[in-house]
Amino acid sequence: MKAVRLHEYHKRPSVDELPEPKVTGPLDVLVRIGAAGLCRTDLHIYEGQWEPLTHPELPFTLGHENAGWVEDIGSAVSNVAVGDTVILHPHITCGLCRYCRAGDDMHCVASIFPGVDGTDGGMADYLLTGARSVVKLDPSLQPAEVAALADAGLTAYHAVKKAVPLLYPGTTALVIGAGGLGHIGVQSLKAMTAATIIVVDRNQAALELVSGYGADHTVLADGSEAGKVQELTDGQGAEVVLNFVGEQGAETLGWSLTRRAGSHYIIGYGGTIDVPTIDVISTERNVVGNLVGTYNDLAELMALTAQGKIELHTRTYPLDAVNDAMDDLDAGRLRGRGILVP
Amino acid sequence: MKAVRLHEYHKRPSVDELPEPKVTGPLDVLVRIGAAGLCRTDLHIYEGQWEPLTHPELPFTLGHENAGWVEDIGSAVSNVAVGDTVILHPHITCGLCRYCRAGDDMHCVASIFPGVDGTDGGMADYLLTGARSVVKLDPSLQPAEVAALADAGLTAYHAVKKAVPLLYPGTTALVIGAGGLGHIGVQSLKAMTAATIIVVDRNQAALELVSGYGADHTVLADGSEAGKVQELTDGQGAEVVLNFVGEQGAETLGWSLTRRAGSHYIIGYGGTIDVPTIDVISTERNVVGNLVGTYNDLAELMALTAQGKIELHTRTYPLDAVNDAMDDLDAGRLRGRGILVP
Amino acid sequence: MKAVRLHEYHKRPSVDELPEPKVTGPLDVLVRIGAAGLCRTDLHIYEGQWEPLTHPELPFTLGHENAGWVEDIGSAVSNVAVGDTVILHPHITCGLCRYCRAGDDMHCVASIFPGVDGTDGGMADYLLTGARSVVKLDPSLQPAEVAALADAGLTAYHAVKKAVPLLYPGTTALVIGAGGLGHIGVQSLKAMTAATIIVVDRNQAALELVSGYGADHTVLADGSEAGKVQELTDGQGAEVVLNFVGEQGAETLGWSLTRRAGSHYIIGYGGTIDVPTIDVISTERNVVGNLVGTYNDLAELMALTAQGKIELHTRTYPLDAVNDAMDDLDAGRLRGRGILVP
Amino acid sequence: MKAVRLHEYHKRPSVDELPEPKVTGPLDVLVRIGAAGLCRTDLHIYEGQWEPLTHPELPFTLGHENAGWVEDIGSAVSNVAVGDTVILHPHITCGLCRYCRAGDDMHCVASIFPGVDGTDGGMADYLLTGARSVVKLDPSLQPAEVAALADAGLTAYHAVKKAVPLLYPGTTALVIGAGGLGHIGVQSLKAMTAATIIVVDRNQAALELVSGYGADHTVLADGSEAGKVQELTDGQGAEVVLNFVGEQGAETLGWSLTRRAGSHYIIGYGGTIDVPTIDVISTERNVVGNLVGTYNDLAELMALTAQGKIELHTRTYPLDAVNDAMDDLDAGRLRGRGILVP
Repeated sequence: MKAVRLHEYHKRPSVDELPEPKVTGPLDVLVRIGAAGLCRTDLHIYEGQWEPLTHPELPFTLGHENAGWVEDIGSAVSNVAVGDTVILHPHITCGLCRYCRAGDDMHCVASIFPGVDGTDGGMADYLLTGARSVVKLDPSLQPAEVAALADAGLTAYHAVKKAVPLLYPGTTALVIGAGGLGHIGVQSLKAMTAATIIVVDRNQAALELVSGYGADHTVLADGSEAGKVQELTDGQGAEVVLNFVGEQGAETLGWSLTRRAGSHYIIGYGGTIDVPTIDVISTERNVVGNLVGTYNDLAELMALTAQGKIELHTRTYPLDAVNDAMDDLDAGRLRGRGILVP
Repeated sequence: MKAVRLHEYHKRPSVDELPEPKVTGPLDVLVRIGAAGLCRTDLHIYEGQWEPLTHPELPFTLGHENAGWVEDIGSAVSNVAVGDTVILHPHITCGLCRYCRAGDDMHCVASIFPGVDGTDGGMADYLLTGARSVVKLDPSLQPAEVAALADAGLTAYHAVKKAVPLLYPGTTALVIGAGGLGHIGVQSLKAMTAATIIVVDRNQAALELVSGYGADHTVLADGSEAGKVQELTDGQGAEVVLNFVGEQGAETLGWSLTRRAGSHYIIGYGGTIDVPTIDVISTERNVVGNLVGTYNDLAELMALTAQGKIELHTRTYPLDAVNDAMDDLDAGRLRGRGILVP
Repeated sequence: MKAVRLHEYHKRPSVDELPEPKVTGPLDVLVRIGAAGLCRTDLHIYEGQWEPLTHPELPFTLGHENAGWVEDIGSAVSNVAVGDTVILHPHITCGLCRYCRAGDDMHCVASIFPGVDGTDGGMADYLLTGARSVVKLDPSLQPAEVAALADAGLTAYHAVKKAVPLLYPGTTALVIGAGGLGHIGVQSLKAMTAATIIVVDRNQAALELVSGYGADHTVLADGSEAGKVQELTDGQGAEVVLNFVGEQGAETLGWSLTRRAGSHYIIGYGGTIDVPTIDVISTERNVVGNLVGTYNDLAELMALTAQGKIELHTRTYPLDAVNDAMDDLDAGRLRGRGILVP
Repeated sequence: MKAVRLHEYHKRPSVDELPEPKVTGPLDVLVRIGAAGLCRTDLHIYEGQWEPLTHPELPFTLGHENAGWVEDIGSAVSNVAVGDTVILHPHITCGLCRYCRAGDDMHCVASIFPGVDGTDGGMADYLLTGARSVVKLDPSLQPAEVAALADAGLTAYHAVKKAVPLLYPGTTALVIGAGGLGHIGVQSLKAMTAATIIVVDRNQAALELVSGYGADHTVLADGSEAGKVQELTDGQGAEVVLNFVGEQGAETLGWSLTRRAGSHYIIGYGGTIDVPTIDVISTERNVVGNLVGTYNDLAELMALTAQGKIELHTRTYPLDAVNDAMDDLDAGRLRGRGILVP
């Protein structure tokens, strides 16, 4: 089979011929890949940025946002059958640690991260994974439509779901960043809450996109955004701020627009939270970390998608054109998410 | 090895010689049994009451409250090692369904119930189980001390834990039934809440036992119990009623002593809830079902036990004396829980 | 001023001339009534059914679903100003008891229920109430559009809001009863969750109405409804059942269609919950009581209404025509809610 | 009557003769003061540090931690009666805003802070307050024993209560700071959770005190504390860190000892939270603000105190000796909390 293999950092991956993987263990699932998302993380891996984090052994197959059809299963697999359409949770988790037993997959003490940590990923004809990573899809969904939700979409959904209990009617959710994660966040908010949604972004086109997805107000980040959001919230700020940027000043903006007794959800990263403790306590505000999402979160996001409540802008490339796709992504020519189709 | 086998309903089980089970699958765990609890359910199985529920194929080995030491493990087992002391969750769950993925083990769509559903249980020298059922114990704990907590204790703990958020200081928890489950319930309440604990039981000795475990008030169920509890609660009843009896009038008593906006937790069974809907809505009270507990619940109960906060009254029998133990249990001669030790 | 006064049970109320009430206490609020809802409860009061419950002294002014404009306020009133459009929470609560201090207005130990308990209600030109009962409205809302939400709508919203945390994407909410409360319940569900909504009712026209409000499936209660709902839920039932009927078999139907680990919310009444405790515990299901709603619930419902997410079918009568309205209601000639306008 | 009046910043208050206040409004409550706590905040007020925050008009009576007996009540007061022993919530809240209606007293948009904001406080023979600020006490409690819990104790309790749901058996709560708030925090944790409690402080005597109150481990902050806590938590840190210091490095220490998926509760202040967003998201940790507490929190803390679960070290001074008490506090000669008794 074909597979996109990274042989060396700073050298574009090659499409190699590899033997097809086989089911051997009782919980193995072999997936015929229908689509694999290409993500900025893939560029970071190519640049070696993940080397100190996961020490992957080269070469390996890229691709951590995967969807396809079940080709074969091990003897103990009961959640999917051959022929099912599936999307893959980005992690293969142990199912045995306290975190797994509580459903908090992202904190599994022994998880595997295919396509990132040196385990072969999904930019290939086939991917061997485990039963705990496959989510069965409504047959109406196509792998190419959903693959890019496996990681980026899941992360946005997870943060929104944690915020839902705070977003009763009459409250405001401020979304900072209307990009790949943010526009899924806006759609998730619309589907699950009646909160007023304000979106701030530097890019007018991105704001127009989310207006169509249910944002009640959009604010261009041109230096006047703090004042405009204050005006929209009677000078109080928002009960929930979902910060999909987390750097370049957004981390400060988000806190300053978090209402008394409110919560600032950090999803994007790069910057630094820098807040006096007197400011934390005198207003009783919170800073909330967010990391990927659970297996059930992914199943729920797929339920929303099957209901037509989540849409994703994509551009499809054949697997052989992976380097065209990487070049386009690198050069900023890629609108929406790039999808590789074997 | 020796094993207590049920060959025929209404005929006492025999202690047979069987081959030792072996680890074959990657998630298999072989446990050398240190102790197996004998429970009223075992009498019910012997009487054939479970036949219509689980259709067990006879003969099989009894024993669904098991603890011991890990003898061997499969290649994928990461939560326990050979030599660890362990207690076994009563169910072996699939780890793949929505419920398992949320941590709600008791609702697994494909769980196995060794010692009950025809799968061999733990009244034997060895038991072959799965990694998802074994909870590693603090080395200070002995199998014979804890085995009977695996099912009965877990059920009591699970219900109490669900009620904890309602039991802020100043509230009252009414415990109906101070028997095998109830006395674990009282100790769990004491360990996790500052609620005032009132216990009602027909048996004065049982009440004296729970007084030593932290009950603030005990009330003998001699016909005057409703009035006495009302007196202790300013005529309002208790915010939480934990009903470990659920029959013979206790189901009615519990509801009548549930305070406005309060909750009636059903744990024992046999009777019928019979409440006008006007009564449910005009006081906004709830009836809450409770079923066994999760894997993490069992781990938490074991943490309490290791801290010395949970004690269990037991009487130990050698495995060969299983029928003496069953006779004693049947005849009401068994104080505390019967424990079989191979 | 004019006021609809009940002088005698089983005798239609008369429209009398009364002196206007005046603000005297610091927390008094005088409301010029814009609209008062007429509700089946008013018929029950007229029939004397509330006499044993609240012992009202006759005569008094009817009307417990009130909205209007603030005419005058006491010196300590800070939440509304003269001229504000307001809706009135049905209860005037003490603000001092544990329940009030927790926001649970419906459990206030000393609440007043104008229009029901003998305190003058809002079928009049003016109503004197307290600051704790008035919710300031968005100026876009008209009293006649919202008055009937003050009690019936609030009750439906309150139950739905309690159920929201259980209704993640992929779950099903079963609504039994598509009448006055049910159709607000459906709209509230649509606004706050992505759950699949199934509605059961005996009346085809009512089902058609809620189809337009977001019901995903409607099922006519013609004897085949249980089977049809099971078919729509893979034989599992619904995670949440909202029972707006609570009598005439609906109370049994609702429980039978409540999924394992699910909850049956009782809102309507008249029948009896009759469930074996074994059934409660073996499936870990709950019965949840629901009573009116909090002050903040009403504010939230008004936020939804201002967003255009809640609509109410009404028919307006002048205050003088109160007995025509009561006749129409009694005779089943009233489609939608009757609204009296001074 | 006598009252401790601040006439000028940086000048010790004087004990003046003033007319007794009188009940005039329907919700007024006149309290004969039994005890008023002296707190470091009183020194800050004397030094003028609160001038820019609350602009108090001088002179006014100090004292914001008050307890006593009800001397007279207004016509609408239903929660206390003449003669009742009471403690006073530090704020008099409006009871009308969204926050008050949700029970979140500390976020009231119009609250009064007697003894701090220029409103007369409780270092006097009598204090006029409102019904919403008085909590009725168990008659077994004496004002001098509990007054200092009104603010400092309440703040510690509130933070602990918020953390209780995270502190299931087997978890660890790390308390940083064993002083006035911290030692109430430890006792609250002990009363409401089964968590393992580790306390870090620079003062060995303070650590010894909290050992007697239920701390499982104490660690002297001598530079080796981080390592010792890591050792006690298997290198994972604590699920909950309660930071009663919040400055001088404790703010950094607390975060570094917060476990993956855990929460860092900020109660003390002075320092700055300075955390990279990548660190927040990659471990999904939270920073939680905490501010005083609710009226119901204070009632709950008093329930714990009546049960004998909360003790406070105090030293009593007559009201006339207020400046001796302030001198002792200023000079570090005051062990435990200073209490002024009229």
